[in-house]
Amino acid sequence: MTDSTAIALLSGGLDSATAAALAIKSGFRVIGLSFDYGQRHRRELDAAVEIAKALNLAEHHTINVDLAMWGGSSLTDHAQTLPTSGVETSIIPNTYVPGRNTVFIAIGLSLAEARGADRLVLGVNAVDYSGYPDCRPDYLEAFQDLADLSSRAGREGHGPKLWAPLVEWSKQQIAEEALHLGIPIERTWSCYSGGDVPCGVCDSCRIRDEALLAAGRPDLCSPGRP
Amino acid sequence: MTDSTAIALLSGGLDSATAAALAIKSGFRVIGLSFDYGQRHRRELDAAVEIAKALNLAEHHTINVDLAMWGGSSLTDHAQTLPTSGVETSIIPNTYVPGRNTVFIAIGLSLAEARGADRLVLGVNAVDYSGYPDCRPDYLEAFQDLADLSSRAGREGHGPKLWAPLVEWSKQQIAEEALHLGIPIERTWSCYSGGDVPCGVCDSCRIRDEALLAAGRPDLCSPGRP
Repeated sequence: MTDSTAIALLSGGLDSATAAALAIKSGFRVIGLSFDYGQRHRRELDAAVEIAKALNLAEHHTINVDLAMWGGSSLTDHAQTLPTSGVETSIIPNTYVPGRNTVFIAIGLSLAEARGADRLVLGVNAVDYSGYPDCRPDYLEAFQDLADLSSRAGREGHGPKLWAPLVEWSKQQIAEEALHLGIPIERTWSCYSGGDVPCGVCDSCRIRDEALLAAGRPDLCSPGRP
Repeated sequence: MTDSTAIALLSGGLDSATAAALAIKSGFRVIGLSFDYGQRHRRELDAAVEIAKALNLAEHHTINVDLAMWGGSSLTDHAQTLPTSGVETSIIPNTYVPGRNTVFIAIGLSLAEARGADRLVLGVNAVDYSGYPDCRPDYLEAFQDLADLSSRAGREGHGPKLWAPLVEWSKQQIAEEALHLGIPIERTWSCYSGGDVPCGVCDSCRIRDEALLAAGRPDLCSPGRP
């Protein structure tokens, strides 16, 4: 398996770090890819660099694609309020960046083709984030169909396969696997805000802290937790 | 129809200008979108700005997404030779940028959702460029399926529709329609090279010049034509 390359999208958060580590465990040579898309803070990009080093990735690229240019999301638009009231699974939350995952996966496929990679590793998770249309299994299946038609390698029958190992996992399962894989969880960044320490009150912090508590690691929870 | 907005991808070339003008003719308020993807020269981006002005577009954005960062194409990689020997329709030419159209359409969908646009207008053409996997009708159909699942608007049943009016046209038909629509063809840029004037010898110049000759306009052909 050591001849096979995988591209792993790295947000700097816990989920994508866990997915990348699972690809390494499966024997892939892993190249990390992160996106400077005009997010509110660079803290998560710094975390992605840290995780790439900690996992000893073969390469790590951060590409600029300024989706904040046209607004439309509280993750990039400073005029909107971040949600702290809990994820409603039937409603698309206002942290939604228009087309973000579609752009990220498309760019990941470009790098995958340039490197002859067999897999594109995604940390997307539909259980805690089913409010996002672009984190659901039917979306990923449609993207695979597109990928198989979009590239030279795909048309020739050996294009990259999307691999989202965490898509049906609970956040607690992800936290437990991350601990099992030895991921330096304290170096990942999931908080929507970009302070010195995670805020502990945004939805992302709350979900992560609940999972770490359930996994028996209160010491890894956000310092800002109420 | 004047309430409806369309996003038109503008390469600076003849095809995308013609597609954008067709959208205007259909009554859409058109927003242009161009990509600084690390192409060999900026001449085509300057042309896109000119065309946006000439067509009096409502907005025009140029977004940076440096796909040249990882190489893989003679359009971005200076170490490779540009093709001048004719387009072989059964072979994927080496001007292929990995995943370029997939990235461009994905970013176009992001802007479409941010602006509530009904259409994403594409100048892709499968007749003269069938060597490119991402210019074919089956690829566009798969992208529509993905778009309908990828966005809030798509899930709610009113997402943007991909519209590639030229996909089955010959280059001569495109040239004739461009003349009919009054597009300032001399301000578009199709040449793979980035000199002061189009080279007249690259495949893109040759195909365009043949079409303009067939349309009875030798005066609009590349000055560098042999």
